[in-house]
Amino acid sequence: ESIAKQQAGNKGVGVDVELTTAINIDNETFLERNFTLTERTYCLSRPDPQASFAGRWSAKEAVFKALSSYDDVVQSKGAAAPLSDIEVVVSTTGAPEVVLHGDAKAAAYAAGIKGVTVSISHSGAYSVAVALAQ
Amino acid sequence: ESIAKQQAGNKGVGVDVELTTAINIDNETFLERNFTLTERTYCLSRPDPQASFAGRWSAKEAVFKALSSYDDVVQSKGAAAPLSDIEVVVSTTGAPEVVLHGDAKAAAYAAGIKGVTVSISHSGAYSVAVALAQ
Amino acid sequence: ESIAKQQAGNKGVGVDVELTTAINIDNETFLERNFTLTERTYCLSRPDPQASFAGRWSAKEAVFKALSSYDDVVQSKGAAAPLSDIEVVVSTTGAPEVVLHGDAKAAAYAAGIKGVTVSISHSGAYSVAVALAQ
Repeated sequence: ESIAKQQAGNKGVGVDVELTTAINIDNETFLERNFTLTERTYCLSRPDPQASFAGRWSAKEAVFKALSSYDDVVQSKGAAAPLSDIEVVVSTTGAPEVVLHGDAKAAAYAAGIKGVTVSISHSGAYSVAVALAQ
Repeated sequence: ESIAKQQAGNKGVGVDVELTTAINIDNETFLERNFTLTERTYCLSRPDPQASFAGRWSAKEAVFKALSSYDDVVQSKGAAAPLSDIEVVVSTTGAPEVVLHGDAKAAAYAAGIKGVTVSISHSGAYSVAVALAQ
Repeated sequence: ESIAKQQAGNKGVGVDVELTTAINIDNETFLERNFTLTERTYCLSRPDPQASFAGRWSAKEAVFKALSSYDDVVQSKGAAAPLSDIEVVVSTTGAPEVVLHGDAKAAAYAAGIKGVTVSISHSGAYSVAVALAQ
């Protein structure tokens, strides 16, 4: 990422849509590989855990796509980072916040990305998330 | 919002998906509380009023989420603003435009937000909107 | 587009959702009018051509909406550009990339738009795309 590109405010965008039923929350191996303990505890405490896991899954995928629009992230190990390296926490205001760990964090830092924001929505059978890397 | 943050081009993003059938357009109290007279007149003039109201509802929710990613908005009365304070009008080019009123406008101004853009789409049973606060 | 607006990092956003079944891939005239030869070859080589065409269609519409949020684009011939002028190619990393041609390219250049990024997602019966013009 050149200084010129950073000054131009270059951004990466990612979107993800998921059928809620596509997430199998009875598969503990799947949940443990892709969600942090904090995320699992949160989703399991919600009125509809499957919808919560689907929303977080959408958010992780959207963030992954937003990061992957930076060549520097893709060329590093960032593109092979496990989804648990992209953590979605709940801020004090109730909005979702992205916390990067491990290779995803290192790759984003190396690419000059200052932050990633995400928004999640559910309705009917679907979850949708949009992420912005900036 | 610090000068440094503004120069970094920090943005807030919001997404919302809605089942068209989730909007009850026979509930006049609901419509009057959440939509301006201009919005109601416009939606009722469209070929499919329910889809139009659902799209505008999605847009308002997406804008609300985009604004709520700024701490300064949440800590002010902005987060408690009624959805009718987030008006979606039709520009001369046919694209949706956001006009903020009341507490939503004051909170956005105080947070250093210069503008909010939104896009709306419908297909099948759903409406989706994405908003960007900048 | 004034210098001030460019420095403020003003962005345009577009979203589009499509029912996969809304795209008739047996209509060759429709495909040839809206998709480049490269796009058609790519989509037809995929496991689910209809879903691929629907995803690209969503992406083109999302880009069109993102560009149309700039007055300068709408006032020029950019708003009347055929969708085949908005080409979605696959980058070396597998992510979608936008290449503008003809009137769409000229209009974006004249409006000071430096680039357009897009993200596409499929699930169940729908495709969703989000585009960012910057």
